[in-house]
Amino acid sequence: MINIGIAGASGYTGVELVKLISNHPKAKLCAVTSNSYKGKSLTDVFPSMRGFENLICEDLDIEALSKKIDVIFLALPHKISMSHVPKLLEHGIKVIDLSADYRFSNAAAYESAYQEHTSKHLLKESVYGLCEIYRDQIKGSRLVGNPGCYPTSILLPLIPLLKEGFIEEDKIISDSKSGVSGAGRSLSLSTHYCEVNESFTPYKVGSHRHTPEINEILSFHSQQSVSITFVPHLLPLTRGMLSTIYVQAKNTASENKIRELYNSYYGDETFIKVLSKDMYPAISHVKGTNCCDIGFHFDEQTGQIIIISAIDNLLKGAAGQAVQNMNIMFNLDDETGLDYVQTPL
Amino acid sequence: MINIGIAGASGYTGVELVKLISNHPKAKLCAVTSNSYKGKSLTDVFPSMRGFENLICEDLDIEALSKKIDVIFLALPHKISMSHVPKLLEHGIKVIDLSADYRFSNAAAYESAYQEHTSKHLLKESVYGLCEIYRDQIKGSRLVGNPGCYPTSILLPLIPLLKEGFIEEDKIISDSKSGVSGAGRSLSLSTHYCEVNESFTPYKVGSHRHTPEINEILSFHSQQSVSITFVPHLLPLTRGMLSTIYVQAKNTASENKIRELYNSYYGDETFIKVLSKDMYPAISHVKGTNCCDIGFHFDEQTGQIIIISAIDNLLKGAAGQAVQNMNIMFNLDDETGLDYVQTPL
Amino acid sequence: MINIGIAGASGYTGVELVKLISNHPKAKLCAVTSNSYKGKSLTDVFPSMRGFENLICEDLDIEALSKKIDVIFLALPHKISMSHVPKLLEHGIKVIDLSADYRFSNAAAYESAYQEHTSKHLLKESVYGLCEIYRDQIKGSRLVGNPGCYPTSILLPLIPLLKEGFIEEDKIISDSKSGVSGAGRSLSLSTHYCEVNESFTPYKVGSHRHTPEINEILSFHSQQSVSITFVPHLLPLTRGMLSTIYVQAKNTASENKIRELYNSYYGDETFIKVLSKDMYPAISHVKGTNCCDIGFHFDEQTGQIIIISAIDNLLKGAAGQAVQNMNIMFNLDDETGLDYVQTPL
Amino acid sequence: MINIGIAGASGYTGVELVKLISNHPKAKLCAVTSNSYKGKSLTDVFPSMRGFENLICEDLDIEALSKKIDVIFLALPHKISMSHVPKLLEHGIKVIDLSADYRFSNAAAYESAYQEHTSKHLLKESVYGLCEIYRDQIKGSRLVGNPGCYPTSILLPLIPLLKEGFIEEDKIISDSKSGVSGAGRSLSLSTHYCEVNESFTPYKVGSHRHTPEINEILSFHSQQSVSITFVPHLLPLTRGMLSTIYVQAKNTASENKIRELYNSYYGDETFIKVLSKDMYPAISHVKGTNCCDIGFHFDEQTGQIIIISAIDNLLKGAAGQAVQNMNIMFNLDDETGLDYVQTPL
Repeated sequence: MINIGIAGASGYTGVELVKLISNHPKAKLCAVTSNSYKGKSLTDVFPSMRGFENLICEDLDIEALSKKIDVIFLALPHKISMSHVPKLLEHGIKVIDLSADYRFSNAAAYESAYQEHTSKHLLKESVYGLCEIYRDQIKGSRLVGNPGCYPTSILLPLIPLLKEGFIEEDKIISDSKSGVSGAGRSLSLSTHYCEVNESFTPYKVGSHRHTPEINEILSFHSQQSVSITFVPHLLPLTRGMLSTIYVQAKNTASENKIRELYNSYYGDETFIKVLSKDMYPAISHVKGTNCCDIGFHFDEQTGQIIIISAIDNLLKGAAGQAVQNMNIMFNLDDETGLDYVQTPL
Repeated sequence: MINIGIAGASGYTGVELVKLISNHPKAKLCAVTSNSYKGKSLTDVFPSMRGFENLICEDLDIEALSKKIDVIFLALPHKISMSHVPKLLEHGIKVIDLSADYRFSNAAAYESAYQEHTSKHLLKESVYGLCEIYRDQIKGSRLVGNPGCYPTSILLPLIPLLKEGFIEEDKIISDSKSGVSGAGRSLSLSTHYCEVNESFTPYKVGSHRHTPEINEILSFHSQQSVSITFVPHLLPLTRGMLSTIYVQAKNTASENKIRELYNSYYGDETFIKVLSKDMYPAISHVKGTNCCDIGFHFDEQTGQIIIISAIDNLLKGAAGQAVQNMNIMFNLDDETGLDYVQTPL
Repeated sequence: MINIGIAGASGYTGVELVKLISNHPKAKLCAVTSNSYKGKSLTDVFPSMRGFENLICEDLDIEALSKKIDVIFLALPHKISMSHVPKLLEHGIKVIDLSADYRFSNAAAYESAYQEHTSKHLLKESVYGLCEIYRDQIKGSRLVGNPGCYPTSILLPLIPLLKEGFIEEDKIISDSKSGVSGAGRSLSLSTHYCEVNESFTPYKVGSHRHTPEINEILSFHSQQSVSITFVPHLLPLTRGMLSTIYVQAKNTASENKIRELYNSYYGDETFIKVLSKDMYPAISHVKGTNCCDIGFHFDEQTGQIIIISAIDNLLKGAAGQAVQNMNIMFNLDDETGLDYVQTPL
Repeated sequence: MINIGIAGASGYTGVELVKLISNHPKAKLCAVTSNSYKGKSLTDVFPSMRGFENLICEDLDIEALSKKIDVIFLALPHKISMSHVPKLLEHGIKVIDLSADYRFSNAAAYESAYQEHTSKHLLKESVYGLCEIYRDQIKGSRLVGNPGCYPTSILLPLIPLLKEGFIEEDKIISDSKSGVSGAGRSLSLSTHYCEVNESFTPYKVGSHRHTPEINEILSFHSQQSVSITFVPHLLPLTRGMLSTIYVQAKNTASENKIRELYNSYYGDETFIKVLSKDMYPAISHVKGTNCCDIGFHFDEQTGQIIIISAIDNLLKGAAGQAVQNMNIMFNLDDETGLDYVQTPL
């Protein structure tokens, strides 16, 4: 059994991790931390969490944790994560960090979007935890930067196309839409029920922090500087994310070649499903699962490809992918503890 | 023209008042106050409020206001209201108070539910602004305590039955359900989108502050002490309120007599509609209007009456009724400025 | 392994059964039938159902089924169910019927609410599948009438109180609220998105078919004729049900005695949780689980008890309880295949 | 007073027209027709429509109508509209057609997207009712083809840019999102509450019938063939539409020039509001109004312009613009009967 700690267990992502680890046949939840609910049980924080009356939120005391756990999931805000990570590693605890702190290999890119990085030396070591693309590196690693939700929904469909030179690098647009849980559980007028309900709006147009994260990864795979246009929007629903991506094919592309390409990358992947012609993803089809659905439309005349991808922002976009990363780190099958069936409602 | 001030214009009820007064043919909006948004225009606070770029939220400065306005709507929290009311009256400004501070004639009842009352002497003068019942008193008054939303939905159907001795006084149950806007615009986990959406729950079971307000009015009309059972619930929708009320008929009642009774009380009222047999209110039928729909089911065998009433909590339950009160105070027709048509969506 | 058939698999309850059986460690899904989608795979019907590409909806051919399955779940409309049940039993197939056809022991009561019963003789044999109450009878049975969703939410909290003489039999009111999935997947103006969204309304006031079902069971347990007042309402959400129940205590009752009573009935039950004082159920706390949460408020002065119960209408109110019934019939632990954890979102 | 008829009054657009005309100071509603609800009053069809008990849905009998009305709004499906229009005109009734039948001047374009056109000769006469652009032609016309909802949200921001040569003609993408009321009141699995709620999905990718309508108008204004990429999506909300439009500036463009351009086209328009820098439209800001809000982001480095527009699909996208067209036809101010204020909830 792998002994697990979860830091920040009282947030929406943290509690999703608690659920997944509790159902995991090879993992044991040994400790949870929470700043806001220290001393309270997880059932106190979330009355719907049955059977967690004895799981008490504690301090993030690394000495104490090091005697109990093999790996820790950090569901903490950026900056807070990197204040703990070096010491966690020193104490022999592997880290899967769900903040942005270890997603970048280029410290300058991180610093321009966030703040000063206080453990730059670890950026060379940390692995970007986009499981289907970085599986080999994840295997041997002790520090994984779990991808952002928007980047996951955008990178999975784009990396194969860019890496194999199927599409123009300079005309990529992602019009992305996310449910409200992506904004977390802390209070803000923008998550007040009456402000979100029956509305829909873009936000951070041209300035969302996930843009540099996406660009760094895409640039690496296309071996040239890629700078996408990314516009996030807020959907009046709790969980789920859908990206509609517009790209321009190079001459090499055709409907069949694109399908074959996706098949060669993802045909054996449990959690990525490329839909058949004229079928498109819906949030209801992936909600509650660790899956990423991808559908696309190729216009032969213009060479335009419209790609639609959908994920559950809390699972494949956060906690689900984090557990998938843990499975890979510990040589388990990707789907261990993640293979539950979802109904349409 | 009546010159109007609105205090607390940046809340959901306040902005509803701004809308109504702006459309009112006999009233002119001369001043708005807001604690949180002082110096900002109402369009800054609510981008959907077009044409209010020059309506700047100011301080509640009574001296200054007294030169500009005839009447003020107070959309303020209880306790704050009563800190201003005596001085407003002294300066010749009529007051329609939407807080609970002047709804009670019995100070002890108020104090047991809220806090010490600092202007008890005004409770004798203040009129309970349930328009269809207290129209005559409202006419001459300079201080109206605008009823709570739950009380409005419960009192309107019950007062005729109790006053005429149609029902037992001691077995009244109201199972009431409100949309989220009733909780206001301030931040709380209980109005976070993800906590409300796809859920439904009772709250303050057996202890909601609207219970003594309801009981005082019902006791007055039945000329004996009435103590109802009242359970409020939170609905996952923005605006609207529905109460399902269970009472026991006395021998005098029958389907027809009840219908005739309602007709004699409300047959000429624009804003109260008693539905025909087997028709029941829905929130969508009253949303956006100042109407209270009432439907009832009488069981001849058991003598039980099930009454359903629906209102828009922000209109008949707050701002709409407040304007109706102003109309009555200033000898206008009740529906002046309130007679717009609503579509079903 | 128990070999399973599911009839009516293309409805919301049917597909919930498919999910549960697919995850069940002791059951194997061998056949699904659907009238509307014959020849199509379940993945065709519900694109979110991954891995069911080869599960093809077939005809309900009893001869063929009898070679493949031990037990069948009937997620069919009433009347259709009873047209198949006698023959299914003759062929040695056990039946868990989710329609109303075998919930009544009194044929006249069934017939007054539905239509002529065509296999009255089976009503003596069939067992009412309210698991926590009828476990012993379910164990040996070959025909279970799975309870309605409203009855489940009302009977579980009331049976202990009535059976032990804690409450008056003649003053029981249940104000119940259900999500839209309870109305099924067939088309009707009343389930059109725009008609339900941002609304709330009662329906079938004084005439819902679940009333006689509730009354028959309550009368049996209280050993006198019980006739409750039951008003169902439609909530603007997909899944979940909450009943607010008003009863009058007899002298024997007290806060503690009620708590002890519930504890003696349900203290050892996995799926029933009696909440501590001042805690009340919410739909979000039970959604996605087979649990029934019960909270209550006792007014010492008046003797009134307000009981709130919440279930997921598709699970404890339908498919979940049906699987629990199967577990009991086949001597498995109740929670087999039902023990998954739910997160709050 | 203008005497008005509304055909198809029992649909969502029809009833919106009824509301607007009922509040209109210069128009009188003289007749409504409905195929599905013939003989019923509008209050029967929509219980929320108070005061329409005597407005009875009749047959579309042109002879009879010609004695009562000056102008008719056709809220009918395409094909049905053109079966009535020639005869309506012959009888001297002006027509504002909300179907697609008279939106095209090129019959072939219409026929490739819809079906054979049975009154092609009228296409030369009919005017495309995009009010702010075609006001002069609308003034003298007797037949207006009221624009589709998606086209309205896309054309208003694009026409100035294309007409003045600010943007590339061949790289226009509109990622558009609509509320469910756009699908009408007829029944379909795709508008079932449980299928829409908590989901989001694109539909008709690369094949929506509004594409040729948009292309014809854009091509006319840019004086070359324009073919946009248009992907519609379904939002889980009742009313509202938002389009996120991606275009490439020509060298002539700059932030200020774009703003000045919009100002010169729309600065005097009541119903079009170009938001200031870094402000973007939200559906809640236009819901319930006839307004189109436009916000844009210009990237100086890449020359990309991201334009966001929002409308209420039932008002500026249908009934509101239709009444605005009537106002123009009859030499009234555009805002007559449309100038109500909207609150944010």
